[in-house]
Amino acid sequence: MHGNVIVGQSGGPTSVINSSLAGVFKAAKDRGAKKVYGMRNGIKGLLDRRYVDLSEHLVSDLDIDLLKRTPSSYLGSCRYKLPEIEDAKDVYDKIFEILKELEIEALFYIGGNDSMDTIKKLSDYAAVIKSDIKFMGVPKTIDNDLACTDHTPGFGSAAKYIAAVTKEIIRDGFVYNYPVVTIVEVMGRNAGWLTASTALAAGDDCEGADLIYLPEAAFDLDKFISKVKELQKSGRSIVAAVSEGIKTADGKHVFELVDHVEIVDAFGHKQMQGTAKVLADKVAAELGVKTRAIELSSLQRCAAHMASSVDITEAFQVGGAAVKAAFEGNTGKVITLERVSDDPYICTTGMQDVHLIANVEKKVPLDWLINDNTYVSDELIHYIKPLIQGELTPIMVDGLPRHIKLK
Amino acid sequence: MHGNVIVGQSGGPTSVINSSLAGVFKAAKDRGAKKVYGMRNGIKGLLDRRYVDLSEHLVSDLDIDLLKRTPSSYLGSCRYKLPEIEDAKDVYDKIFEILKELEIEALFYIGGNDSMDTIKKLSDYAAVIKSDIKFMGVPKTIDNDLACTDHTPGFGSAAKYIAAVTKEIIRDGFVYNYPVVTIVEVMGRNAGWLTASTALAAGDDCEGADLIYLPEAAFDLDKFISKVKELQKSGRSIVAAVSEGIKTADGKHVFELVDHVEIVDAFGHKQMQGTAKVLADKVAAELGVKTRAIELSSLQRCAAHMASSVDITEAFQVGGAAVKAAFEGNTGKVITLERVSDDPYICTTGMQDVHLIANVEKKVPLDWLINDNTYVSDELIHYIKPLIQGELTPIMVDGLPRHIKLK
Repeated sequence: MHGNVIVGQSGGPTSVINSSLAGVFKAAKDRGAKKVYGMRNGIKGLLDRRYVDLSEHLVSDLDIDLLKRTPSSYLGSCRYKLPEIEDAKDVYDKIFEILKELEIEALFYIGGNDSMDTIKKLSDYAAVIKSDIKFMGVPKTIDNDLACTDHTPGFGSAAKYIAAVTKEIIRDGFVYNYPVVTIVEVMGRNAGWLTASTALAAGDDCEGADLIYLPEAAFDLDKFISKVKELQKSGRSIVAAVSEGIKTADGKHVFELVDHVEIVDAFGHKQMQGTAKVLADKVAAELGVKTRAIELSSLQRCAAHMASSVDITEAFQVGGAAVKAAFEGNTGKVITLERVSDDPYICTTGMQDVHLIANVEKKVPLDWLINDNTYVSDELIHYIKPLIQGELTPIMVDGLPRHIKLK
Repeated sequence: MHGNVIVGQSGGPTSVINSSLAGVFKAAKDRGAKKVYGMRNGIKGLLDRRYVDLSEHLVSDLDIDLLKRTPSSYLGSCRYKLPEIEDAKDVYDKIFEILKELEIEALFYIGGNDSMDTIKKLSDYAAVIKSDIKFMGVPKTIDNDLACTDHTPGFGSAAKYIAAVTKEIIRDGFVYNYPVVTIVEVMGRNAGWLTASTALAAGDDCEGADLIYLPEAAFDLDKFISKVKELQKSGRSIVAAVSEGIKTADGKHVFELVDHVEIVDAFGHKQMQGTAKVLADKVAAELGVKTRAIELSSLQRCAAHMASSVDITEAFQVGGAAVKAAFEGNTGKVITLERVSDDPYICTTGMQDVHLIANVEKKVPLDWLINDNTYVSDELIHYIKPLIQGELTPIMVDGLPRHIKLK
């Protein structure tokens, strides 16, 4: 392939989505692409002809190294779902017109399952109009909820940050000689992978979380209060990790148990917050104990200073693998990660039809929950552990991690 | 001095309070102390005869290295203020009886201005009863609000973490093509040093915070909304950093502007939260823009994985200096940090009478606030910058920073 390619980033930021961008850029250049364009703010920006020639911005190896260490989407992102093809042929025609103008031979889209929907629709449309342009999906999401892949780039770094700060929060929580109940709220609307990673905090040097609640199992408020009461008999502090998305058996979110403003985003996801606060207030009221609510907030997805080097490397690899696959003639596919072995951890890339991945959510298997759904199994811990290994030390300038931003 | 010494930790945790503990332990052993006892949970634990022989727990150089990297108080802490001497002679007699039992020649107390009150009272009482025991204060507080010292151990690491994650939050906040107003809430009841450190995020690779509000200046809600509205004209996302303790001109905390539960701790400090949430909700309602509230929470004081090596080193040094001073016959004193030069940064230890430090709060000078009190001056940035330099890489085991905990 000796024409041009274009790459976009979509959906929520992660610590390593830019490492995938670096992987696409480097592999495309190495394999002879003339120009590597970057869409600004994903497909939505492309529709407004907003793009850059990446070679003008990434000019040195240091730039690539900084890109790998910079959180969030270097090119900007969007939360825009393409309309159904039959409803808006004009949108698709416009995209293909722009791709033709730019002499694009392959398009790469880095994102989660909502973003893979874009690759599905564009490759479907290409088949309809008999276009030769290749469309490849590059997986990314801290939520680890993509189907057909062992795990997703972005998850390992988020899990590493969450486990590391859980250790610190636990040290902090045990400092006084009276019991404190700390509720740590972790991201995850429907999938509990991130919340489960708090379990990695436990070890010789850390008591670990006492309770872990994932959204996969129904949450029972009364049972929770009883559990805390029972644990309190030890007289020591207690730490519970809860997913922001936990729901009661009748499908009500815990954060809805009090008055709350609800905001719905472009994909119809409810914007959630306050699960930890609701539970902390409830425990304080029912048990008369001091409580703390800690929301790990967006740092979970952007704490690149604590990224996993396994994750950064794999994010880079899936970018490169997508380029290789497209240059070899594939389209309508998503690169996957395939775990070959646990010990030693060996993982390779694979490929799947985008139709099997787009819009599907992979949840934590219920048999990986234990203790009446209040903790996670060793299998789950062993599954996550290899993904948080190693560090890619930030490039520190004047005491702070250095980033790169698009001018 | 060839007898025993005892050391305690008090007040809120920091990332480097254990480095001061390591400094006291090592200097005392090196200078010939027979035993180095550690109070569990500060002076309150000592009153219950709860202490350990530190040599039995810190047995190797690796233990000392882990201690320097472990956040929160290894010995446990307390928030206990000694009663006035005239009101409770029995409490003081009991303490001195226990110190006599343990053959203590010097007592070291690592803490903030509330904790220095303990050193003041114990050294005053020693003078009354003509005891030879030396009492030395070792400064510690993320708040940087101690008088008579250039800065306090603990502040530099908190400032480094705050500045680093502010950079990450800003990258995260600029990812979409529509404006988001992010309000970052930083610790600091009455002193704005920590909030000011968000200013260090700005640079070539980061837009920096747009607005910074410290508790030293009265906060005007209407003016704030106007400022945000004005900045919004640029069409880009906005980040404001606010101290948890900002108050309106009539002395009302911003978080009190809505209904809120109030909890008062043992020192009569109000437990605060929700300042960012209150402001984010207000901006959303008044300006119809998407907002996010991010509370940096207790990670500010325990994110040892992002500690400043300048801070860890100085924390270790003030511990050692306190031992040296006591062994040279000083009592009723607090070790201070004296900045000799800014460029290059040179800092040495000094000593002050505890009566000048206990219970005094050092605030940010008002002439270090600029732009109608919505940002901080270059002087303030230059003051903080040397304190966040350098890293003491965590000792990583199985992908996570290793700590040490008291068995």
